[in-house]
This record gives sequence, C-alpha cells and structure tokens, in this order.
Amino acid sequence: MYYPEPIAKLIESFSKLPGIGQKTATRLAFYTIGMEDQDVNEFAKNLLSAKRDLHFCSICGNLTQTDPCEICSDQTRDQSIILVVEEPKDVLAMEKIREYRGLYHVLHGTISPMNGISPDEINVKSLITRLMDSSVEEIIIATNATSDGEATAMYLARMIKPAGIKVTRLARGLAVGSDIEYADEVTLSKAVENRLEL
Amino acid sequence: MYYPEPIAKLIESFSKLPGIGQKTATRLAFYTIGMEDQDVNEFAKNLLSAKRDLHFCSICGNLTQTDPCEICSDQTRDQSIILVVEEPKDVLAMEKIREYRGLYHVLHGTISPMNGISPDEINVKSLITRLMDSSVEEIIIATNATSDGEATAMYLARMIKPAGIKVTRLARGLAVGSDIEYADEVTLSKAVENRLEL
Repeated sequence: MYYPEPIAKLIESFSKLPGIGQKTATRLAFYTIGMEDQDVNEFAKNLLSAKRDLHFCSICGNLTQTDPCEICSDQTRDQSIILVVEEPKDVLAMEKIREYRGLYHVLHGTISPMNGISPDEINVKSLITRLMDSSVEEIIIATNATSDGEATAMYLARMIKPAGIKVTRLARGLAVGSDIEYADEVTLSKAVENRLEL
Repeated sequence: MYYPEPIAKLIESFSKLPGIGQKTATRLAFYTIGMEDQDVNEFAKNLLSAKRDLHFCSICGNLTQTDPCEICSDQTRDQSIILVVEEPKDVLAMEKIREYRGLYHVLHGTISPMNGISPDEINVKSLITRLMDSSVEEIIIATNATSDGEATAMYLARMIKPAGIKVTRLARGLAVGSDIEYADEVTLSKAVENRLEL
C-alpha cells in the first residue's frame, strides 16, 4: 500500500523544491490537506499567477509585471549610475535601504568557471548595450562577496573600464554590529586593508 | 519598492506552511518562477486535487479516495485486530513493514492536557462505536512514544479493557542498529525492564 495518488503527487511536487526532501515534502503535503479550502485555492492561484504574470524587464532584467520595469521607467531616478546585482532579490535588498536612487542591472547569476558558466550565459550582453547608448557615468558592482561574485566583478571591471566609465564595488569590511572576535580572517584582513581615516 | 504583487502573494502562501519562514518562502517563490511551466502547473493541480479528492475513511479515519478505504473494505484482512495510530502517515509506516494484516484506526491527534486537547477532539468516539458492533479481539495501541502519545494510550486502555478486549502496546526498547552508548536513559531503562529471554 502506498499513499493515495493525489497526496503522492503533491509530495512529489513539494520535493522538487530546493532544500525540501522526501520527509519535509510529506509533512508539507499532509499539512496542506488540513489547511482551509480557501488557503489552498489561493496557494494554487498564486503559483500560477507568479509564473504567468511576472516577466524580466527587457532593460535591466529585474522581475516585473510591466515592461520596462517601474525603476527603469522612473525618470526621477539618477540615469547616470547603474548598480549591477546577481539576482532580483538583491534589487529589493538595495531598495530597502532607501538610499540608492540610480538604476539597476540584474545578471541572473555569476560567471563560474567551476560550474562551467561563461559570461554568455548571464545577462552581461545587455549591460554592454546599455552602456553604449546611454550617459552612464558609474557602474557599481554589487555581486555577492563569494569567489564567483568576485570573479564576475573582476570580469565586468575589465570589460567596462576601457570605455572610460567609472567602476566601483561595494566595500568589504566588518558587518555592522559584529564582533571582531568572530570575524573570519579574510574579512578582518580586508577591513584592515580598507581602513578609513576618522 | 516591494516585490511585485504576484511574487509577494506566492511568498505569503509558502510562508503559511509549517517550518517555512519568510526567507525560505522567498527562496522557494523565486525558485518556482524559474521552474518549467509544466512543473508549476502540475504543482498547482496537485495542490487542488489533494485537497479535493482525498477524504477521511468514515470507518477508520485514514486518508482515502474511496469510502470506506481500501483497507477497511479488504475482507482478506484480519477483522479481529485494530491498530490505533495518531496520523494517516503512521498507517503507511506500518504497511511498509508488510507484516501487519489487521485493520487500523486513525485518531488524528492525541489527547493533550497541556494543549487543552480532550478525548472528544480526536477520533475516539468512532473507535468505541467500532468495538461495540464488531468481533474485535485485540486493540494494538501504536501512538508515538511521547508524553501525549503515552497519555492517549493510557486513556484508551482504561476505556477499552473493561469491555473484555485485549489491549496491547508497541514494545519500547533499543532501536535496531542503535548503540547503547547513545541511547537515552529512559529508553535504556525500558529496554532493561522489558528484557526478553534468549
């Protein structure tokens, strides 16, 4: 005897999600059966709608319902700076600090020689196109502080700098509120190297 | 700026699941957007179907597409033994060992004085009804080895024994393959108490 087919199929769907194994999928599927009808209908509707109604902005690559996205079409934003991030969620993280007023560009990944991901496979080409016909003065590279993120930053800097555009990168150092005692060695050495005068 | 509405709603749906917080929900929602159309459609369909097509068996309370369930309507099974479990998944766990050939009864929970769950709130009454008009000779209580599970077992035994029906409980002892060194004290003392002659 196995699970009745409807729940077996639902378990299979849940277990296709990242970080969700057979056991968690089973727990989630059984929980779903006990949920209110309305919540389950809503869940199914939201899944379909997220897949159907969201697109990538044809200019910056961010997730959006309209094309171009709200940020690209907002003329009050500073058109001379583009901040380059790996994923759409990074755009949101930046927007949350309410300080950056320029434009974005979403790469949808990083260059990763280890995993065989070349610059052609991420959203780099359209960034170069944007630089050609616009009045961009600075590119801020905000890829993650991982080895793939660093490699991507280096690659972009080498591509863009010769065009006479300023290329900067987010500062490396101690996270605010963190203890020196628990900082890893690389972070600590970066923090010393990039020390600021008071 | 917030997430576009379709993804914000999907994040909300995911975060209603147990053990899934805001961050995991966000990760899952973004992952879903990157999934194949077909997989997402399938996922939504499976959610609705699991909720719509599954019911609880009117006899034993197990999850089923037919009523009564396959096990209750299988006349080749031993009608004189009922094994009582907390949840439908426990039925599957028992069926997997392919040794038990009797019937089941699913309580859908445990009595829990701590959480204010009284016997009336779990599927006990229908068990008593089953005992009245059937030829059941033995009840095997297979609630979890937790304090609520134990309390439920004790309660059921006290209810059923006076009717002259044999009430048994799954053995407590060392898990097969486990090290004595790592067994907890209660398990170890139960294992000594219930030692078997070789």
